[in-house]
Amino acid sequence: MRPSGRAPDEMRTIEMTPGFSRHAEGSCLVKFGDTHVLVTASVEERVPPFLRGKGEGWVTAEYGMLPRATHTRGSREAAKGKQSGRTQEIQRLIGRSLRTIVDLKALGERQITIDCDVLQADGGTRTAAISGAWVALRIAIDKLMADGLLTADPIRAQVGAISCGVYEGTAVLDLDYPEDSSAETDANFVMTDKGGIVEVQGTAERDPFDEETLLRMLRLARIGCGKIYAAQAKATGR
Amino acid sequence: MRPSGRAPDEMRTIEMTPGFSRHAEGSCLVKFGDTHVLVTASVEERVPPFLRGKGEGWVTAEYGMLPRATHTRGSREAAKGKQSGRTQEIQRLIGRSLRTIVDLKALGERQITIDCDVLQADGGTRTAAISGAWVALRIAIDKLMADGLLTADPIRAQVGAISCGVYEGTAVLDLDYPEDSSAETDANFVMTDKGGIVEVQGTAERDPFDEETLLRMLRLARIGCGKIYAAQAKATGR
Amino acid sequence: MRPSGRAPDEMRTIEMTPGFSRHAEGSCLVKFGDTHVLVTASVEERVPPFLRGKGEGWVTAEYGMLPRATHTRGSREAAKGKQSGRTQEIQRLIGRSLRTIVDLKALGERQITIDCDVLQADGGTRTAAISGAWVALRIAIDKLMADGLLTADPIRAQVGAISCGVYEGTAVLDLDYPEDSSAETDANFVMTDKGGIVEVQGTAERDPFDEETLLRMLRLARIGCGKIYAAQAKATGR
Amino acid sequence: MRPSGRAPDEMRTIEMTPGFSRHAEGSCLVKFGDTHVLVTASVEERVPPFLRGKGEGWVTAEYGMLPRATHTRGSREAAKGKQSGRTQEIQRLIGRSLRTIVDLKALGERQITIDCDVLQADGGTRTAAISGAWVALRIAIDKLMADGLLTADPIRAQVGAISCGVYEGTAVLDLDYPEDSSAETDANFVMTDKGGIVEVQGTAERDPFDEETLLRMLRLARIGCGKIYAAQAKATGR
Amino acid sequence: MRPSGRAPDEMRTIEMTPGFSRHAEGSCLVKFGDTHVLVTASVEERVPPFLRGKGEGWVTAEYGMLPRATHTRGSREAAKGKQSGRTQEIQRLIGRSLRTIVDLKALGERQITIDCDVLQADGGTRTAAISGAWVALRIAIDKLMADGLLTADPIRAQVGAISCGVYEGTAVLDLDYPEDSSAETDANFVMTDKGGIVEVQGTAERDPFDEETLLRMLRLARIGCGKIYAAQAKATGR
Amino acid sequence: MRPSGRAPDEMRTIEMTPGFSRHAEGSCLVKFGDTHVLVTASVEERVPPFLRGKGEGWVTAEYGMLPRATHTRGSREAAKGKQSGRTQEIQRLIGRSLRTIVDLKALGERQITIDCDVLQADGGTRTAAISGAWVALRIAIDKLMADGLLTADPIRAQVGAISCGVYEGTAVLDLDYPEDSSAETDANFVMTDKGGIVEVQGTAERDPFDEETLLRMLRLARIGCGKIYAAQAKATGR
Repeated sequence: MRPSGRAPDEMRTIEMTPGFSRHAEGSCLVKFGDTHVLVTASVEERVPPFLRGKGEGWVTAEYGMLPRATHTRGSREAAKGKQSGRTQEIQRLIGRSLRTIVDLKALGERQITIDCDVLQADGGTRTAAISGAWVALRIAIDKLMADGLLTADPIRAQVGAISCGVYEGTAVLDLDYPEDSSAETDANFVMTDKGGIVEVQGTAERDPFDEETLLRMLRLARIGCGKIYAAQAKATGR
Repeated sequence: MRPSGRAPDEMRTIEMTPGFSRHAEGSCLVKFGDTHVLVTASVEERVPPFLRGKGEGWVTAEYGMLPRATHTRGSREAAKGKQSGRTQEIQRLIGRSLRTIVDLKALGERQITIDCDVLQADGGTRTAAISGAWVALRIAIDKLMADGLLTADPIRAQVGAISCGVYEGTAVLDLDYPEDSSAETDANFVMTDKGGIVEVQGTAERDPFDEETLLRMLRLARIGCGKIYAAQAKATGR
Repeated sequence: MRPSGRAPDEMRTIEMTPGFSRHAEGSCLVKFGDTHVLVTASVEERVPPFLRGKGEGWVTAEYGMLPRATHTRGSREAAKGKQSGRTQEIQRLIGRSLRTIVDLKALGERQITIDCDVLQADGGTRTAAISGAWVALRIAIDKLMADGLLTADPIRAQVGAISCGVYEGTAVLDLDYPEDSSAETDANFVMTDKGGIVEVQGTAERDPFDEETLLRMLRLARIGCGKIYAAQAKATGR
Repeated sequence: MRPSGRAPDEMRTIEMTPGFSRHAEGSCLVKFGDTHVLVTASVEERVPPFLRGKGEGWVTAEYGMLPRATHTRGSREAAKGKQSGRTQEIQRLIGRSLRTIVDLKALGERQITIDCDVLQADGGTRTAAISGAWVALRIAIDKLMADGLLTADPIRAQVGAISCGVYEGTAVLDLDYPEDSSAETDANFVMTDKGGIVEVQGTAERDPFDEETLLRMLRLARIGCGKIYAAQAKATGR
Repeated sequence: MRPSGRAPDEMRTIEMTPGFSRHAEGSCLVKFGDTHVLVTASVEERVPPFLRGKGEGWVTAEYGMLPRATHTRGSREAAKGKQSGRTQEIQRLIGRSLRTIVDLKALGERQITIDCDVLQADGGTRTAAISGAWVALRIAIDKLMADGLLTADPIRAQVGAISCGVYEGTAVLDLDYPEDSSAETDANFVMTDKGGIVEVQGTAERDPFDEETLLRMLRLARIGCGKIYAAQAKATGR
Repeated sequence: MRPSGRAPDEMRTIEMTPGFSRHAEGSCLVKFGDTHVLVTASVEERVPPFLRGKGEGWVTAEYGMLPRATHTRGSREAAKGKQSGRTQEIQRLIGRSLRTIVDLKALGERQITIDCDVLQADGGTRTAAISGAWVALRIAIDKLMADGLLTADPIRAQVGAISCGVYEGTAVLDLDYPEDSSAETDANFVMTDKGGIVEVQGTAERDPFDEETLLRMLRLARIGCGKIYAAQAKATGR
């Protein structure tokens, strides 16, 4: 029995509020239950040095968590003067996941920076962030197209992400914090609406797991991502 | 004529949503028009080293702005590896303002950390932060009292803050961003509901100002703070 | 009774030694009693990136305190690897104060950096720094004019700064360290010799203060600034 | 055809030189072809603060690459003043992988720090590091047991790691640099000699991959890990 | 012919003003011609962690240069966030030189920190700093003895330092900046009044030098140090 | 009697393995007994900003020590976020020593970066590093000449370095760690095969030393450097 009473293959309620932020070209407040992430997409008409003059664009991401997004207050990374290894790992994952579904040549020499800031955390912040990031990115690119700055759509697919795990012996979908902190195994999947896998990261928290468990989690992830694509489509009016 | 069409002594709409954050002992989403600040109050049962064993508590504050809270994206302080001078100046002001109205002996050996994170900025983020911080602090202390950890109330007064300025020759209340960026003079006032001044910071942006201007801004600030105390009272059920 | 035996409206002895430093274009060793600050003005024929090509100059300031300028040794900011919030607040104030009285267009595309280094501290280091900075700046600009690099004088006024406070119930002028550390209220005023206010920063150290106290401190500040303008004039031969 | 001429399921030559370093409690120079990693295990009789007094030990890892381990010189992280996100991600992975096969209670209140320094890189540095780290750890723990400091063996299994990928449409084992830099898909597997999966990290470099590809890579990884366990056993005399 | 017109074995004028700083236990403003260094000695009744409980004291030094001590303004190390290699090298040398002439056991469990801040530079700042540091240290220790905190004098000798070099083919004493920046060879000597060498650091700036040159410079250094010991004795009344 | 049983003028065994590193233009694994340093020389076809357009090249060095190169593990400088004063001092010495024997004009506008990484330490790491650096540099420059990028040889001499010291009253050559940690006096000499001194750094560890001791150490250093030049010649086939 899951602490939340959810069925093994039951997601938390997904809410996506597009346009939450007034200034950003694209934005989305995404909620996976009590995990709330504010995502903005900022368009800049220039690319990082390594891409200058190559006729290609770039999509990158930064991630942060408000100090009291969690049960006990964490220290503020800006005050400590550096981002943790965890933060960097997550923001690299978000950027990589989005770049897989964007045609960077079609984007042209511009950069889109995705900021994912966790207002409240209850497990699964990176997967909520990726899922909401697609919405913010979609809106920002729709704006570029509406403004005539892009003629062809550089987005090739929807991308969503979800965590799965083995909790008390059962493979379950969309771990919340109580599950996450005691799961035996934990895996994050990033997938596209065409069925492809963009990233899989499975970790044994205590004992190693087997191939069967990996596949069971993958199947749950497909179920979860289906819900995410639907929520994304609704939020962006597609 | 103000860009917003407001009268010189007219505040923006104030909204204070108490309990916005699930985990913090006290929290408040405060909005002064399009300026939105999420404030949390975190209680820890220990004090900083310089106060250990003195039987006194401490109230401190940290301030941050999401990278895309503003018109153009600013760089993330955690990524740059340090907080700007402006950030430090603001968080020192917030902490100092709150300590003035708290009886630190009555608080006992515990620390309350106020985190003020600007989700969206349209001028006046520090004054909104201070005003909302009082609500978060009030709720956190009410909780300590309800839990029997405090018997006497350490809060001695309400504290609110507002900016005033001279815009196109007229003293106006509660500057928004378009006013703030072109005001001749700019002053922030922190005051209590007993009528006392906690902090005044007036700056000539171009030409020096005179005593009369200072007093005119102070009078407007009193009007604005009255509205803030009322909003605080409503948000905390007082 | 003030610890120093001074009358409430009595300044400490002001000494300003122009040309203290051999290499700088302008310099001044300023003493407000036992507070000694070495100020240099360095002229560079280029401006920061945000001003390039705009035909305007810039004046900026940096502030530091020698580790043993104070009663007990403080740690060296260069060794700690960062400037404190207090340091940044002060150097921002100094730069802002000087820019108010300089016509940056008339200065042309060059930058003047004011370095204020406290050799010995006894309260009021920031106000001594601003007051001495004007002398260093004046000398540096006189040199630019003598060298034919400037034809019109970009300095529009003298600027001075002084602290006031309420000590044992009485408003007093030019706080020294023993007063500063136990004052109920503390305010720094930056003013020009034309009578205008450039900056006012008043802080309640314990209980909030009232409008009358603010005005009383302002009046004392005018008295103190009068002495400062005279000392500046003498030091620069004006 | 692979650039190296290897068969798809053919590993590079593995060499493991135990005791390469004179001072460390355990050490190993591990070579996967032209990828050379020097691994040391350092035993300290104390644990990090979060474990003090809990009767448990800790295993952690740090990773670095000599500036000229690669084709073109990279900048030295110590000189830049921070470890890259990639470095942190890798050292977190190494530490996590080793902790999975160590009984931390049985280790007692001591910490073993694994340092993995890449002397020469040709792809697969993290997997070589993990595989060699097991040898260094095994030797260090054998020494603790020989010295009578441990009576029961806290190591529960061998752990090895290997990368697989899809190169020109074919799933291949143990990517070298030319393959790694142009692979369509890339996955690192950490597994134990009992057949369990400790970590799987698969990334689509260009297009998403499917479940079948993931399973094919997993099967290759099992083949590779078999060779690694044999080399580990030989190096440690087991 | 030396730029200054001095004879090859002629020092610049040495001035040592003891007690320059009001707060420090010992202080000295030392001038070697136009090189001016403010040195303070701060006594703390505790030692660094590695010495706790060993019944020994410690003497350490920190060095800094005001940004405009030099011909062109250098950047402030506190603002850059780190001390340069040159700064660290110099402060290590100063600390080491002083420790050689102090009986650390006789000093007892206390630390004396020497701060050397260059107000104006014209070559030879490190040697002036060491020479003045002895005066500040002497005064601080005299105070400890006068206060009855020390009964035996822990200072075993005077220590002085001077630079020599080969300028236009001639070995010269006490290089000023014009000589220093074009000398072929440059050596710093730290010596005691008993004739012993504490440190010698000779560097070929262009071509290697020979033993004879080294010895010629050493002889000049002895002459210079004689003058320094006399100035130290005078400044400390010995 | 030396701990190693060596005669006072006896070096440890020197081994120099050229071409140890596959990617670097020049490399050498240098061993002075149990001190092992991996040196690489990396050629870049650009110079640092201060040399651009001057038609001159640059040689610079970086130094590091693996955390467990020593008896007890030291912390990793990249993890601490800064290089120690010792590290900076050493790498400045290495760079300076090599620049003395290179004709930078003849090198042309390119930079050679020497990385010296200590794999195992037993005293004398800096002198081993300099001695091995010459080999790596020689190989890299031979490659530039073989590739036709240089026609004249910019290397003017061989450079070697060795430490000497006074151990139990006797001057000895090539200190190992047990000697180094208890030597009364310690000096590092950098010399060329033409007999010139490039750098001499002598330090009294306890009591000051005299001129005779300095000269005795210098004579030993000449013996040691002779062995080093021979080993360098052999390693580079000269």
